[in-house]
Amino acid sequence: MAEGAGGPSAVKYGVTRDYVKAWRWCWPTAGSFTPGWRTDKGVVGYDLTRLFVGSEGTLGIITKIILRLIPQPKAKQTFLVLMDSMAQAAALVAKVLARFTPCTLEFMDRTAIGIVRDQLPVAVPAGTAAILLVELDGTAVAVASEGADLQAFLLGQPGVNLVRQAADSAEAEGLWAARRAISPAAFSLRPHKMSEDVVVPRTKIPDLVACAEGLAQELRLVVFCFGHAGDGNIHVNIMLDRADPSQLANAEIAKERLFAKVIELGGTLSGEHGVGITSPAICPWRSMPLPWRP
Amino acid sequence: MAEGAGGPSAVKYGVTRDYVKAWRWCWPTAGSFTPGWRTDKGVVGYDLTRLFVGSEGTLGIITKIILRLIPQPKAKQTFLVLMDSMAQAAALVAKVLARFTPCTLEFMDRTAIGIVRDQLPVAVPAGTAAILLVELDGTAVAVASEGADLQAFLLGQPGVNLVRQAADSAEAEGLWAARRAISPAAFSLRPHKMSEDVVVPRTKIPDLVACAEGLAQELRLVVFCFGHAGDGNIHVNIMLDRADPSQLANAEIAKERLFAKVIELGGTLSGEHGVGITSPAICPWRSMPLPWRP
Repeated sequence: MAEGAGGPSAVKYGVTRDYVKAWRWCWPTAGSFTPGWRTDKGVVGYDLTRLFVGSEGTLGIITKIILRLIPQPKAKQTFLVLMDSMAQAAALVAKVLARFTPCTLEFMDRTAIGIVRDQLPVAVPAGTAAILLVELDGTAVAVASEGADLQAFLLGQPGVNLVRQAADSAEAEGLWAARRAISPAAFSLRPHKMSEDVVVPRTKIPDLVACAEGLAQELRLVVFCFGHAGDGNIHVNIMLDRADPSQLANAEIAKERLFAKVIELGGTLSGEHGVGITSPAICPWRSMPLPWRP
Repeated sequence: MAEGAGGPSAVKYGVTRDYVKAWRWCWPTAGSFTPGWRTDKGVVGYDLTRLFVGSEGTLGIITKIILRLIPQPKAKQTFLVLMDSMAQAAALVAKVLARFTPCTLEFMDRTAIGIVRDQLPVAVPAGTAAILLVELDGTAVAVASEGADLQAFLLGQPGVNLVRQAADSAEAEGLWAARRAISPAAFSLRPHKMSEDVVVPRTKIPDLVACAEGLAQELRLVVFCFGHAGDGNIHVNIMLDRADPSQLANAEIAKERLFAKVIELGGTLSGEHGVGITSPAICPWRSMPLPWRP
């Protein structure tokens, strides 16, 4: 549920693995079995679901998954919030989450805003340090009422310099289009990108963004941050030209120092992308014959 | 979240283990470690949370747990629904869940109704085969609007012979008091109780209740069912006098046949109570010296 650009926030809906009830598991030398439960609840025996979800094929191949489904929300409201500072944006995220249960709480930093400035449906003042994208979902009546409360709340908060409510789903889609355009549009700055997917406690987002800005300046790179503020899951993107050995070396240094900062802040190195072939040592499939090799 | 009488339904809030982010784990011969993530998201390495939650001490002792928290809902509405048949009650459960996201969807069968009939705030007609207790939570405006929709919907459904909305939280508490009184009040029928905690797919609840009624009649026992209809998690209670060897033998037969039926229906033998000392073979702690023995 929560994974991927534009997905619902973990805050309201949890994460995808919370919806995995059972699955069919195959191991080349050991046949198959189906752990988990088809029912919503079950506490007999060890629950292996989370162990396998995210194990990226290292524990076997999953050939069938049984998921819990929830009704599609009937209505949604989308708010764009321009903020004067990243620290105030992070403080606002915490305050919003203490009062509301948004289904989306995205953010983009100063550099990301610069990349998609022309695609946003509002004029973004030069001093804008962060943009939040907040969405509520539920029944039409509930969303209208909560949306009015949220808008009134946002307008009274320090650092907020504009709140724009999408008039309809087409305008909301326009806001999302700008958000989704960040990654592809960034290639206009440098030809290559290192995309990281770190997670920090929500209150530490300003520290992480400050670290990214410091690394960009010190190592002469373009670094921008955007992502799921509600989950503390931030995509830190280092733009570079791999043909330039000094940029490549600096980008590697930036990545290592970013990771060290994330750990220092009590975070984790990936929130939704996974580790994949970055850690080949733990993947036994790689030395096996096809079709078991992913 | 979902475990225990009166707890929120798995349908809206998932189950407790979905809220466990990290914990400190101790093993007598191996020191301690702290798996999991403090952040809302994390996909680096194997997720051991669910493996340990519900392992009932067999994999080690948990000395600290970090949980995800959500805001307390601001308002709640409670509806009591009297039904003419168990099959219609189960059909109604499925229909309600397709249209609404109740935070509670409890039921009690004919025998359970008989036990607490005097404690209910409405006169229950003799032919009533099931009672549903449905609750919505959220903001006051959302709950008022959804509550009106739910009431209108319930009144038009086959088998519904009365819908009573609790006027205030005191009346709602009265309904819950009756629901919670079932278990203790049942001892007026027979001095001992075997409480089972089975789960079946929601559509199979009538089959399970019919099985329980058939076993009661055939084996001359009192058997009643109540529980979390929204989750398919049904507490089947076999009342008996353990001093009477034939009742005890029949109760054991009833339990075995009930379990066989649950498995046949695609269910599982425990939804929230766990297995505990019923399966001593898998618990290494039992042969260890204190303080490791729970």
